[in-house]
Amino acid sequence: MKKFIPHFLALAGALSVQAKIVTQTVEYKQGDTTLEGYLAFDDALSGKRPGVLVVHQWLGLTGYEKQRAEQLAQLGYVAFCADIYGKGVRPKETGEAGALAGKYKSDRALLRARVTAGLDVLEKNELVDPKHIAAIGYCFGGTTVIELARSGADIAGVVSFHGGLDSPTPADGKKIKCKVLVQAGAEDPFQKPEDLTAFESEMRDNKVDWEITFYGGAVHSFTQPDPGFINSGAHYNEKADQRSWRAMKDFFAEIFK
Amino acid sequence: MKKFIPHFLALAGALSVQAKIVTQTVEYKQGDTTLEGYLAFDDALSGKRPGVLVVHQWLGLTGYEKQRAEQLAQLGYVAFCADIYGKGVRPKETGEAGALAGKYKSDRALLRARVTAGLDVLEKNELVDPKHIAAIGYCFGGTTVIELARSGADIAGVVSFHGGLDSPTPADGKKIKCKVLVQAGAEDPFQKPEDLTAFESEMRDNKVDWEITFYGGAVHSFTQPDPGFINSGAHYNEKADQRSWRAMKDFFAEIFK
Repeated sequence: MKKFIPHFLALAGALSVQAKIVTQTVEYKQGDTTLEGYLAFDDALSGKRPGVLVVHQWLGLTGYEKQRAEQLAQLGYVAFCADIYGKGVRPKETGEAGALAGKYKSDRALLRARVTAGLDVLEKNELVDPKHIAAIGYCFGGTTVIELARSGADIAGVVSFHGGLDSPTPADGKKIKCKVLVQAGAEDPFQKPEDLTAFESEMRDNKVDWEITFYGGAVHSFTQPDPGFINSGAHYNEKADQRSWRAMKDFFAEIFK
Repeated sequence: MKKFIPHFLALAGALSVQAKIVTQTVEYKQGDTTLEGYLAFDDALSGKRPGVLVVHQWLGLTGYEKQRAEQLAQLGYVAFCADIYGKGVRPKETGEAGALAGKYKSDRALLRARVTAGLDVLEKNELVDPKHIAAIGYCFGGTTVIELARSGADIAGVVSFHGGLDSPTPADGKKIKCKVLVQAGAEDPFQKPEDLTAFESEMRDNKVDWEITFYGGAVHSFTQPDPGFINSGAHYNEKADQRSWRAMKDFFAEIFK
């Protein structure tokens, strides 16, 4: 069994050849609500290693997020998909998904409590180095990880992929301790200019360590190949997907030093 | 002597240990004007390899750009610093630098001719694979490499570091064949919002393959540690410097495949 070596120091492919990815469904609680997350790690590695929380899109925890967790495990991280909605709450269509995402976006305190419960599970995992933790999220999850940062979470960084950036409490920007990487579609019609401006002010005013990349030609959900996500304003973009994943890996290389 | 291996596949440090960086001053012409560029490559490598053109800031070709060329040579590329102003034209102070940069910004045809002359030198170098060429530039040079793209240059990509994005002929965006990466300071006071908006429209309208990253906390000249560049709107930012250099390497890994 070999020790964890950061992926950016390992030869391309070397880890994946020997990797033995283990996945587990994990039940946990926030208050009285039962949540069902998903853990993935490489059992061929020994020792503590960085942990990455993965927060789902508006459809709840699906195969998409699980696959991302497995990709992160291939890179040597312990990945845990949080469940914000609750065990068994997995919307089947966009109307229900929109209502659920809207519920949590309108109740940021509850959203923070739910994502923090997921973070706790990850932090307490015996394989995780608690000083090296990040959170990533897609769409609704991209909003959620920034909300986690705004809660003052003591983690190394968050990466938001095509997430909404609005905040009902911009003063909470002062609580942000971690680094923030935002990855956005330059043509995302769901990204309101006024939200972007407010977000930039929030980061600037609070001297947050942040950066934002806009991918040309990319609209909403640019990392999501599932055809169910395609509509007039959302579409998979392979190039932006690959570039943003690489940027995330670079970010991890920096924050997990 | 070993073959060129892209830096992103080589083990960290392996190339630099064995590197034998050779540098040469190169005289060349654009029309009747004599220009003086600077070439750098690793003589410990054999075979053709990607070439990178480096375009200078408003002070003309200085030690700063030469050092960047040497860093690129360490990565295995053939790097050539273009000289836009002409042999011996090396402003000593910012008034003269501003006048010179302004002259070329006001005469984009001449600017394109000058940068293209530098590109020709690089393309004809026997070590360069002419199908794998990129151009990078800083400040004035960042403007220049985008102008090179707008000229229809048949290269793989350009990277602009804290460069102006304005164009007197936005319709030239349709000539852009290469990929465009813009790296900007989120707080750069010299980046006019209207120029940024126009640039985005130019890229969008012409379906250019482009992306832009804004580094939080970074102002103008964020890659330039020389204290002579520091003023109320310009300052070195080590983090943004390192992140943008890494993003450039990722970009090269993609376009030089």
